[in-house]
Amino acid sequence: MTDPQRGRVSRRTLLMGGAGLAGVGIGAAAVGVAGQVSTPADAPGTGLVPFYGRRQAGVATAPQSHVQHIGLDLVDPGDVPTLQGVLNLWTQDASRLTQAGPSLSDTEPELARTASHLTVTVGVGDRVFRAPSLTALRPSWLKPLPPFSIDRLDPRWGQTDLLVSIGSDDPVTLAHATRMLTASVRRSVRVRWVQRGFRNSPGMASGTMRNLFGQVDGTVQPPSDGFDSLVWNDGREQSWLADGTSLVLRRIAMNMDTWEALDRHGRELSVGRTLDTGAPLTGTAEFDEPDFTASRGGITVIPESSHIARAHRRSEREQILRRAYNYDDPPEPGSADTSNSGLLFAAYQRDPVEQYLPIQARLAEHDDLNVWTTPIGSAVYAILPGATASRPLGTSLFEAAGGRSGGPRQK
Amino acid sequence: MTDPQRGRVSRRTLLMGGAGLAGVGIGAAAVGVAGQVSTPADAPGTGLVPFYGRRQAGVATAPQSHVQHIGLDLVDPGDVPTLQGVLNLWTQDASRLTQAGPSLSDTEPELARTASHLTVTVGVGDRVFRAPSLTALRPSWLKPLPPFSIDRLDPRWGQTDLLVSIGSDDPVTLAHATRMLTASVRRSVRVRWVQRGFRNSPGMASGTMRNLFGQVDGTVQPPSDGFDSLVWNDGREQSWLADGTSLVLRRIAMNMDTWEALDRHGRELSVGRTLDTGAPLTGTAEFDEPDFTASRGGITVIPESSHIARAHRRSEREQILRRAYNYDDPPEPGSADTSNSGLLFAAYQRDPVEQYLPIQARLAEHDDLNVWTTPIGSAVYAILPGATASRPLGTSLFEAAGGRSGGPRQK
Repeated sequence: MTDPQRGRVSRRTLLMGGAGLAGVGIGAAAVGVAGQVSTPADAPGTGLVPFYGRRQAGVATAPQSHVQHIGLDLVDPGDVPTLQGVLNLWTQDASRLTQAGPSLSDTEPELARTASHLTVTVGVGDRVFRAPSLTALRPSWLKPLPPFSIDRLDPRWGQTDLLVSIGSDDPVTLAHATRMLTASVRRSVRVRWVQRGFRNSPGMASGTMRNLFGQVDGTVQPPSDGFDSLVWNDGREQSWLADGTSLVLRRIAMNMDTWEALDRHGRELSVGRTLDTGAPLTGTAEFDEPDFTASRGGITVIPESSHIARAHRRSEREQILRRAYNYDDPPEPGSADTSNSGLLFAAYQRDPVEQYLPIQARLAEHDDLNVWTTPIGSAVYAILPGATASRPLGTSLFEAAGGRSGGPRQK
Repeated sequence: MTDPQRGRVSRRTLLMGGAGLAGVGIGAAAVGVAGQVSTPADAPGTGLVPFYGRRQAGVATAPQSHVQHIGLDLVDPGDVPTLQGVLNLWTQDASRLTQAGPSLSDTEPELARTASHLTVTVGVGDRVFRAPSLTALRPSWLKPLPPFSIDRLDPRWGQTDLLVSIGSDDPVTLAHATRMLTASVRRSVRVRWVQRGFRNSPGMASGTMRNLFGQVDGTVQPPSDGFDSLVWNDGREQSWLADGTSLVLRRIAMNMDTWEALDRHGRELSVGRTLDTGAPLTGTAEFDEPDFTASRGGITVIPESSHIARAHRRSEREQILRRAYNYDDPPEPGSADTSNSGLLFAAYQRDPVEQYLPIQARLAEHDDLNVWTTPIGSAVYAILPGATASRPLGTSLFEAAGGRSGGPRQK
């Protein structure tokens, strides 16, 4: 069981990902991994991640095998009571589903019997703050990213009013939760896109995840001792957002055909890490600190143009929580593409302008990997503070707007 | 480890599905389930299903969590040497990938390190037999199903020349195997569709799978003692097909909105089973024999128009191996649908005309469930006999056609 209220998540917990939950299985005892405890998979209601808490689950929670990021638009973006009703309903349903119980008006309660580390994480986009009562409450960073020369953005994967990210180790649980959380609010919101991602199944691979280029992906994460201030909002700018965070969600297409035409050495130089272990080219193990000054025959071992050299932080603030997933959708009908693959890159940080943008601007300027990767979707969300039974998602926002905290208008 | 060469698979093995493999996990000992033995998940190359054998794996193998049925068309359907080259390459690559090794020219060998019960199962469609040397070798049943009044078939999910069904408990393994098996033959074949299905993750739910209507789905299976003669081809009509089988793959859309408008009692009457346990309405447990004559107040307890009453076999031959998966794709862009869900219904049997068609004709004539379900895709394949290192997939077919068994033309 992972505790989302635990602000400090050890490096190991984060990096272990689903593998941190490997101790599941008949006869397997509960296994403690730094920062989390997993329960045996055959226990009733197996794999429960608390929903209620100061902070939402699904951010610092060890990544599950499957995720669906669902982008939704309000039918009437100015209708704040309806927004409040939607968030209230999601709170009630998610608090039940994540605990392996049926949602309020669950139509297939049998599919709600397992949670498999189900988490539901809710965010709001900038358009929501166009409502007069909310205008002054928009965090300054909640706006579209500036355009980058490498972008080939498809509006199909663009900014939406709301985001629900649903994660689980079980695809049936995920499908059911998706159905319950979208069908219940269909009169108030429209699903604009669903982005599905996956990682290895629990216990099937250890350590940092690999993307579909075969690279170890997500080695660099905030350190335990700076995690809270790097990831969670402190309420300094907008007090209602304390214990929330921000999400930058980028859909990055990866061209398998051209990547596979590159030899192994060329691939390793473009990333700056070995494919085998993910070690920097100057080291022998994944978590070795890269030495960007080391040279051989007058040439730096890790090319200055490589991904890790360009992504490496220039200041302590340039740190983000990476929680990426692979996607591999069928090629569009009639397309000659052999694959439709890539990465759902998700970066969580206190302030994306301060923390994420400098990294992204540098990568857009140059990153050897840009030859094979193309950003095709982009959106930024404020991830709301956590909920309790008496304070549903968004309560602090609506209180700040002068609304009532109880009895939101139901749809 | 499941042995695909084992012709007799116990009812329990089949019905347990992925749950039969639940004994995986750190510290879990190998667990024997009737007919199969699973290996601990943390062993290197975890979860290996033999590829070589008299019969292909992926039919009688306990269903994995994820499947991709990939329909492909030959660029030149009359080019038998190319077909032979494709099957030879698939044999070589699948024999490696399923054993947690890289494919022949694997471009991301790191993604091949786990197999997670990977199986690769290959079938051929009727058009392949239009080649003059193969015409006489077509099994008589290998042809499109007759049209049914309930069908709303979309050619997008129609018959293809070739089928590769890839199953695994790990979505990353599945994506990698899909990439390797399709990219390597891209000059000879074109992917026409990919149909992705899922069930519960290993260990997450026990017993027969549930579909997204919440119903227990697939209770009735061939008995152990009749399994071989019901499922595997005996070579009587086409000797080259001995130890092969047939697959009828139907894509069945399930209308969640209208189904969810029906009350629980109405749902149970339409199926003839309880939603809770899947027991027939005349019984208390899933595998109780339904009593179609039992009545209460002059009305049969299981309606004659219910799914199980209509599907129930009228003769011993009307038995098929059901190996269905759920699908839940994002609604089409711009669509007002709230879900795009259904069932990838897969029926394996010695002879679909004799075994599957009578059941299907009866269901098409009337099945209460037809109100909420719509067949939108249909295809029939001959699943080839198994391969060995010296006899790649299709060898018996090409031998019967008078071709050489060795040295097929490579692309």
